[in-house]
Amino acid sequence: MGQLVQKSCFFLFLFLFLICQSVLASQKSLRHRKPCKHFELYYHDILFNGTNAANATSTKVANQSLPGNFNFGMLVVFNDPITKDNHLLSPPIARAQGLFFYNKKDDYNAWFAFTLVFNSSQHKGTINIMGADLMAEETRDFSVVGGTGDFFMTRGIATIRTDTLQGAYYFRLKMDIKLYECY
Amino acid sequence: MGQLVQKSCFFLFLFLFLICQSVLASQKSLRHRKPCKHFELYYHDILFNGTNAANATSTKVANQSLPGNFNFGMLVVFNDPITKDNHLLSPPIARAQGLFFYNKKDDYNAWFAFTLVFNSSQHKGTINIMGADLMAEETRDFSVVGGTGDFFMTRGIATIRTDTLQGAYYFRLKMDIKLYECY
Amino acid sequence: MGQLVQKSCFFLFLFLFLICQSVLASQKSLRHRKPCKHFELYYHDILFNGTNAANATSTKVANQSLPGNFNFGMLVVFNDPITKDNHLLSPPIARAQGLFFYNKKDDYNAWFAFTLVFNSSQHKGTINIMGADLMAEETRDFSVVGGTGDFFMTRGIATIRTDTLQGAYYFRLKMDIKLYECY
Repeated sequence: MGQLVQKSCFFLFLFLFLICQSVLASQKSLRHRKPCKHFELYYHDILFNGTNAANATSTKVANQSLPGNFNFGMLVVFNDPITKDNHLLSPPIARAQGLFFYNKKDDYNAWFAFTLVFNSSQHKGTINIMGADLMAEETRDFSVVGGTGDFFMTRGIATIRTDTLQGAYYFRLKMDIKLYECY
Repeated sequence: MGQLVQKSCFFLFLFLFLICQSVLASQKSLRHRKPCKHFELYYHDILFNGTNAANATSTKVANQSLPGNFNFGMLVVFNDPITKDNHLLSPPIARAQGLFFYNKKDDYNAWFAFTLVFNSSQHKGTINIMGADLMAEETRDFSVVGGTGDFFMTRGIATIRTDTLQGAYYFRLKMDIKLYECY
Repeated sequence: MGQLVQKSCFFLFLFLFLICQSVLASQKSLRHRKPCKHFELYYHDILFNGTNAANATSTKVANQSLPGNFNFGMLVVFNDPITKDNHLLSPPIARAQGLFFYNKKDDYNAWFAFTLVFNSSQHKGTINIMGADLMAEETRDFSVVGGTGDFFMTRGIATIRTDTLQGAYYFRLKMDIKLYECY
């Protein structure tokens, strides 16, 4: 009888210990956990150059206003196609709708705020993103600050890398979206 | 005596089970839970047209720069009254301060980032919101990405619906705010 | 023997009670908890006035478009130094990259969205912030909506206070960052 009590207590404590562990784990180790969703996308931006209205996906709405070579103050509004692979003409799986502007005097550097809009059989919903595009670094991290639809209330990190840069009017980013809060 | 032990253990396990349930529930089923706060608001925007400075609540700061009929690139800064009912002249219960811009070539489509500023006896504090206004859809979801004061650290979804549209200079949105994280 | 069982049960219940407390506490009392990180910073903004390109850290990209004295519609892009003390020439410990615009007809009032970019031996990473700068109030709260690097996934409140205002081209804010979610 005493043994039974001891055993019961042992298992109860073990059980309690595991609960505590899992609660603490869910609060602390997010950083080392695997993302709950993870996908790679390509973002294509074709800036309006005065003659390419049919193909352009973005347009300058304010010009550079500080003298210099790196467009400090140039603000661009975009509605850019997002594809699964790096081909501009692949069927878009989403659109990126938002703005960016350049903000450095002695180098290219930008700031982005935008929404990824998914509207396919696979995904419906939006992911909202903002952050600094520190163009001097090979990879840069934006914050995923919220989501709707299939991405209800999500949060995470969007890591970007410049995939190609063709003159002043086309660039492509590789975007690695890691969501750490999914509901 | 043995019965007492068995009963105690039974209740302990039941108790543990309920704790686990509630912990897991709070982590997983947010989507199906009721919002912790829920309210409906009306948002009124009167765009400056060159002659209505006294009534205007918003103004174009950058003009359309891509040719077309849907204002791609037009950026508007606003400080718009928020009312409880759909009457423009009802006493505002908050202000919406922020920006939007149009970003589509072949239809109206916009992107918003703004703060709802409450300063009444009922609510003091702010709610920060961003997202794509997919105007072709009847309802659109923005992300509530943060809050201050009475809305400290809140997150959720703001669902909007165009309530009326009067020419190019007045529109009214119905805004349904559902907060899923309250502190 | 009966006493042993009673004692065991007593401690188990105590233990369970404490677990419940801590779980509930972590969900509810964030508001009354101490921040997990807390630091004070100074933010310096030198607006380009046409002749100070070497020192300027921000520039108007859109001008006021509504008549009036409070710059409704003036939009500024900035890349401003952040220092530990209130001296403009102290070595910056971060940069604030983002935009603000004025949005009130009868007083100064602004709206901000920006990223604090840390790149020192002490901190590497970014903090993303947005909110209304209700300039009529002595202190104003922005939302910290996300972070990367050392500030992975963080959330919190940034309280600002105008520290000094020198004419139209220099202002300094004291910024009190309280992070309530750290990972």
